[in-house]
Amino acid sequence: MLPDRAFFDLLADAAKAETLPRFRVGADVVNKEASGFDPVTEGDRAAEAAIRALISERFPEHGILGEEHGSVGLDREFVWVIDPIDGTRAFISGVPVWGTLIGLYRNGDAVMGMVDQPFTGERYFADGRRSHYAGPEGSRVLATRACEALSDAIMFTTSPHMFTGSARERYESVQDKVRLFRYGVDCYAYALLAAGHVDLVIESGLKPYDVGGLIPVIEQAGGIITDWEGGPAENGGNIIAAGSRAVYEQAMAILKG
Amino acid sequence: MLPDRAFFDLLADAAKAETLPRFRVGADVVNKEASGFDPVTEGDRAAEAAIRALISERFPEHGILGEEHGSVGLDREFVWVIDPIDGTRAFISGVPVWGTLIGLYRNGDAVMGMVDQPFTGERYFADGRRSHYAGPEGSRVLATRACEALSDAIMFTTSPHMFTGSARERYESVQDKVRLFRYGVDCYAYALLAAGHVDLVIESGLKPYDVGGLIPVIEQAGGIITDWEGGPAENGGNIIAAGSRAVYEQAMAILKG
Repeated sequence: MLPDRAFFDLLADAAKAETLPRFRVGADVVNKEASGFDPVTEGDRAAEAAIRALISERFPEHGILGEEHGSVGLDREFVWVIDPIDGTRAFISGVPVWGTLIGLYRNGDAVMGMVDQPFTGERYFADGRRSHYAGPEGSRVLATRACEALSDAIMFTTSPHMFTGSARERYESVQDKVRLFRYGVDCYAYALLAAGHVDLVIESGLKPYDVGGLIPVIEQAGGIITDWEGGPAENGGNIIAAGSRAVYEQAMAILKG
Repeated sequence: MLPDRAFFDLLADAAKAETLPRFRVGADVVNKEASGFDPVTEGDRAAEAAIRALISERFPEHGILGEEHGSVGLDREFVWVIDPIDGTRAFISGVPVWGTLIGLYRNGDAVMGMVDQPFTGERYFADGRRSHYAGPEGSRVLATRACEALSDAIMFTTSPHMFTGSARERYESVQDKVRLFRYGVDCYAYALLAAGHVDLVIESGLKPYDVGGLIPVIEQAGGIITDWEGGPAENGGNIIAAGSRAVYEQAMAILKG
């Protein structure tokens, strides 16, 4: 049986209790190595530990893949894929575009997921069929935007410096063709894509926990997310997410080279 | 007599009533030229008109320099400098790092200012002596961070593509020396600098209304903001803002070339 929304909320609330109190504190800590005080690492570890404890108690038969505390039972039917603070650089510098990502894989497919931004109070959740938003603007079902042409698309990526070699050339060829591109938004970019504000996200070198919680939110809002070969995004790597089939195919024609 | 905080709040509230209802609506409007529907331009114009009406009523003897509706009385003792939506690309794509900037110049010097982010509910305000924060974390007096070395600094810029020619080379020389750099934060970067989360912001080609409201917030929190020659930032141009004298001087040694 799949877990319900209440259980995802429980996990996100437990993480939030560890992350939000550490956000924007220690502003005077310039060099965390020298001071030994590192709020983001502390928050990351404590949040993941809190999430894992709740999962182990409620679903002891499930596996867990986390960023901070390693893996358990990856060959099980259900595996939770957790990134307690995605966007550590945003977290460190005070920008509320980091998030807690919680995904649930079933036999390797991401079937449920949540993206939580504790500071803005926004929560994006895929229940297995549809994606939902709850935040300052209220609650609603999410739908991606039907953008028909790459030349009309808004594209996000965390940083152009994440691409190297021919991946960078291919990324830049896409960037040259979109209407507007923007850097520096981490997991929040994928949430905005699911909500229909952004048409395309292209990134490189992602880990499974960087995308696991995002895949269902995008797919169940009507979007497409794969690697640059068109294969599943569940294992990370070079990732493309698009709100429409047209934008996906036009970008993929360039990325495939 | 200088206006009080209540008057700045009145202006920011009037702008928010025009901007926030237009943020994240029309997600299905892919091509605003074709559809004739352009929420950001509508919001920009309506917010500035609302601010100007309040200023003209209360302080008819003051001048106004706005982004959308031109200038009035720029040679007067007091001149308001207004950018109703700074960060239009962020606004268009749903990222809550745009802001309403309201500055008050006296004989050409920026003496009071406010940065308002309506979605997150954050307000940064310089009252002529000190800078203040009000938001989800409560209220407090702002202070920049005493970062001693460029190699420890966190630096923000809206986009590396804003620099051209030798300005780009000099910018990149600074970027190569900082601990962490990040793109895509618009006026919110300066607010984070005033709050002590970020140490350095470097940008190029700014208009007076892009910085007018920010200058007092940074200076009255203990920071420094000038152009790349060390002259006043009030007229825009190539701008550097730093939280500490040490970081400012180390970055300026590179930017001056």
